[in-house]
Amino acid sequence: MNASELWDRYRRYLVYDESLGLRLDVSRMMFADDLFDRLAEPMERAFDAMDAIEAGAVANTDEGRRVGHYWLRDSSLAPDDDTRQAIGDTIAAVRMFVGKIRSGEIKPKQADGFYIALVVGIGGSALGPRLVADALEGDGAGLVPVFLDNTDPEGIDRLLGDLEESISETLTIVISKSGGTKETRNAMLEVAARYKGAGLSFAKHAVAVTGEGSALHRQATKEAWLATFPMWDWVGGRTSVTSAVGLVPAALAGVDVEGLLDGARACDRLTRNRVVRENPAAMLAAMWHYAGNGRGERAMVVLPYCDRLALFGRYLQQLVMESLGKRCDRAGNVVHQGLTVYGNKGSTDQHAYVQQLRDGKNDFFVTFVEVLRDRVGASMMVEADVTTGDYLDGFLHGTRAALYEQGRESMTITINELNARTLGALIALFERAVGLYAELINVNAYHQPGVEAGKTAAGDILDLQRSALAHLRENRGTELTADEIAAALGAPDAAERIHHLLEHASANEDHGIRRTAGDAPYRARYAAS
Amino acid sequence: MNASELWDRYRRYLVYDESLGLRLDVSRMMFADDLFDRLAEPMERAFDAMDAIEAGAVANTDEGRRVGHYWLRDSSLAPDDDTRQAIGDTIAAVRMFVGKIRSGEIKPKQADGFYIALVVGIGGSALGPRLVADALEGDGAGLVPVFLDNTDPEGIDRLLGDLEESISETLTIVISKSGGTKETRNAMLEVAARYKGAGLSFAKHAVAVTGEGSALHRQATKEAWLATFPMWDWVGGRTSVTSAVGLVPAALAGVDVEGLLDGARACDRLTRNRVVRENPAAMLAAMWHYAGNGRGERAMVVLPYCDRLALFGRYLQQLVMESLGKRCDRAGNVVHQGLTVYGNKGSTDQHAYVQQLRDGKNDFFVTFVEVLRDRVGASMMVEADVTTGDYLDGFLHGTRAALYEQGRESMTITINELNARTLGALIALFERAVGLYAELINVNAYHQPGVEAGKTAAGDILDLQRSALAHLRENRGTELTADEIAAALGAPDAAERIHHLLEHASANEDHGIRRTAGDAPYRARYAAS
Repeated sequence: MNASELWDRYRRYLVYDESLGLRLDVSRMMFADDLFDRLAEPMERAFDAMDAIEAGAVANTDEGRRVGHYWLRDSSLAPDDDTRQAIGDTIAAVRMFVGKIRSGEIKPKQADGFYIALVVGIGGSALGPRLVADALEGDGAGLVPVFLDNTDPEGIDRLLGDLEESISETLTIVISKSGGTKETRNAMLEVAARYKGAGLSFAKHAVAVTGEGSALHRQATKEAWLATFPMWDWVGGRTSVTSAVGLVPAALAGVDVEGLLDGARACDRLTRNRVVRENPAAMLAAMWHYAGNGRGERAMVVLPYCDRLALFGRYLQQLVMESLGKRCDRAGNVVHQGLTVYGNKGSTDQHAYVQQLRDGKNDFFVTFVEVLRDRVGASMMVEADVTTGDYLDGFLHGTRAALYEQGRESMTITINELNARTLGALIALFERAVGLYAELINVNAYHQPGVEAGKTAAGDILDLQRSALAHLRENRGTELTADEIAAALGAPDAAERIHHLLEHASANEDHGIRRTAGDAPYRARYAAS
Repeated sequence: MNASELWDRYRRYLVYDESLGLRLDVSRMMFADDLFDRLAEPMERAFDAMDAIEAGAVANTDEGRRVGHYWLRDSSLAPDDDTRQAIGDTIAAVRMFVGKIRSGEIKPKQADGFYIALVVGIGGSALGPRLVADALEGDGAGLVPVFLDNTDPEGIDRLLGDLEESISETLTIVISKSGGTKETRNAMLEVAARYKGAGLSFAKHAVAVTGEGSALHRQATKEAWLATFPMWDWVGGRTSVTSAVGLVPAALAGVDVEGLLDGARACDRLTRNRVVRENPAAMLAAMWHYAGNGRGERAMVVLPYCDRLALFGRYLQQLVMESLGKRCDRAGNVVHQGLTVYGNKGSTDQHAYVQQLRDGKNDFFVTFVEVLRDRVGASMMVEADVTTGDYLDGFLHGTRAALYEQGRESMTITINELNARTLGALIALFERAVGLYAELINVNAYHQPGVEAGKTAAGDILDLQRSALAHLRENRGTELTADEIAAALGAPDAAERIHHLLEHASANEDHGIRRTAGDAPYRARYAAS
């Protein structure tokens, strides 16, 4: 299409909401004009399904759960009084608790206030809070948020080393819905040990966000932690950012959580509109369907031209891939669905992989995110009549054009400025797009059956490790190969696993395992010393 | 395959070098045993090509340049005395300069030393230095490295706001090979203005790493910056981490740069071995060829189970995608080659998208990175006989098994520990794998013709912005639509671009453009006030 046809197409398909300061431009997606007719029926069914979800249907059928993240920003939608009450009470409790922390009414014994918020969580209990903190930090004068999102000893050492001087003024927020996520449990235990080592009571520096009755909930209650906030089984981890999971860290960091909720609520309202061409979430879902033929055949490259949104791609990677990457559809057919998401930020990524996007395999579409307001206050000129922000925006539109020239498709989401309200809207926009698209392809977007297998296998490996270590200790001083240990345990099939776990164990001092090299790594001998 | 067959396969194909502490396990890539026979001839040609490159061939034919990053860690390989001399002199100069900075022999006028190293650069001038700093920071007691890698005003404000109190003790390193990269130039100008605003001389806090005779080189010379280090046209940005680009920030941060160079040199030696099954780089290249049918049909998901390597995936995203994502092969055939790379770290990403990897589209293979040593010193037990590090390693092997069960392929790179030497080896390993694979698919891995178009288009947009602003000012006070301005400029085809750039300009105060809303965003009117 020539420039004038593209301008027409831009104007024909632009979805916008001026009160929210949000636009979606799909003019560089080369769908045929009959796309919306073809999708009309499935899209109607998708809207029906979303209505049912919002009304309290058990949409997460496998797990027998309702899907209530939309209620979090408009509790009047919740299907019963108890739920409505719980939502409102939790927001009020978060506000009250954070107010006391920030005013100093609640303060640590050995310092004059809490200045650092250490969030311990992983996956849905980390990506949302981190996105919000990274995007909006600095809007207020809150605690400095830091995140521990793994069970990596060196990662824990580095982060806690940085905090060593300030641990007495550090508030730790442990977030785990089930309370049983091992990475979070492990990191929490190491954190608690540091407090203890510094002569401090962990309980008096700790807050839990967890499900009622979880192991974490019981521990927090028993030890009388500073506070406990609920997670409900009707909120999935990857859509929990407007629950206490996201609100507690955000409020502590000084983020305008009312604005965040308000933006999400306004976007929810906007995206209930059944006229697809006026509904940016439905439009996104339609574009995903078009771009990947309803089978995820193209990856979505997320490119916000905005440093503060550098984590948005990672956030969406989780939201989209964990929701849509499914083996079976709701009818039980094996479909191997998914929608791959990657991307960091522009224009930085132009210098990383836009080379491949423009010239290489055409197996993707780009979602640009444009932020119109550059900064608070005036900019210097870096050339006559040109600012750094003019360059940033110029690079976005230049790259969009250069990709289009080569038949590479893109969408552009524009927000007037990045603030709590527009970030809330972006989050809600993609939550609903995922919900609608999942209905279009008929998958359950709310479970994650595929992640259990890896955890179970890891548990088996740790059981095997205990057995292998016990065997070596029973034969203390005797050097044995992985094969010999496997045979002795009556588990010859476990030889490779024993090799791997003893290579790891013998590289560390914790289990007292000594390694003697063989002529190949897999012929090493191990002994308990 | 059953466990015993897999153990056999593991032992048959394991590539290892005990002196380097590096292994590559390809047992979960399900290639047929004749793969190496089938690739024997093309692999021989690839080795010939790599020999020629190391001997000084003009392998980057389009740009008429040699490809010399392998010489950087073994200058004896360089094709002439001048080059050998330049490499050695530069390493010595870096060492001497950094020694003076860290000893305080060179110190700022208004502080007692330099404590922060602000690196301004983008793409190849940022990703390598950031990876090294993030992976190895803390090994020494150097300057604290921070990175400015974009032309985003708010990103600049945030970073410089954090540095406000310490700008007098901040050393700024501007890295730009051509000296003409606009993002870097812009960020540098904003940084320089902050120094000036604080009453400090930017030149007396600045170091340049750039090509001889570049605009940046001329500026640094004219203003007598503290130091200037060379970039050579025979080193590409994405393979520049063992040049001054990577060494200056690394040495300032206290990283053992000798170890980094030594690890890279040792890996270079190892990966010249023409026996593919003893050469981890050739093995990687063979696996990439197998997995994607030589056409990049599967993405590589990079999952280091190591917080310190969280940026490795982004680093490889650039190295691999910019090198391999090409429209034409060396014979001029249109091939649209590439190899998509994404991934952050394990086990964190297990909670993000492993759901899709296991159950969804089988359009990828995983490259796990395992680090055997967990941390310096002993670990606490989080359960009987189990440490946080046992969990981390258990999750890696558990996920590898869970993926294999579902026919998802993976490789595992194991290093004994993460240090400067093993990081240098990992970097060299993938540099050579990219070089070999590029020869297998016959593309020039050393140019990036596709990134110019976006920059050119951005330049056109900024020219158009100047014209549009001038027109509005000539008609000061008159409200005009994008269409009217385009017509007045005699460029009706530019209407959409004018709309976009005036939406941006009017959202900021810098150009004095006022916007009056229309009944749709594209019918807004603009006026110079």
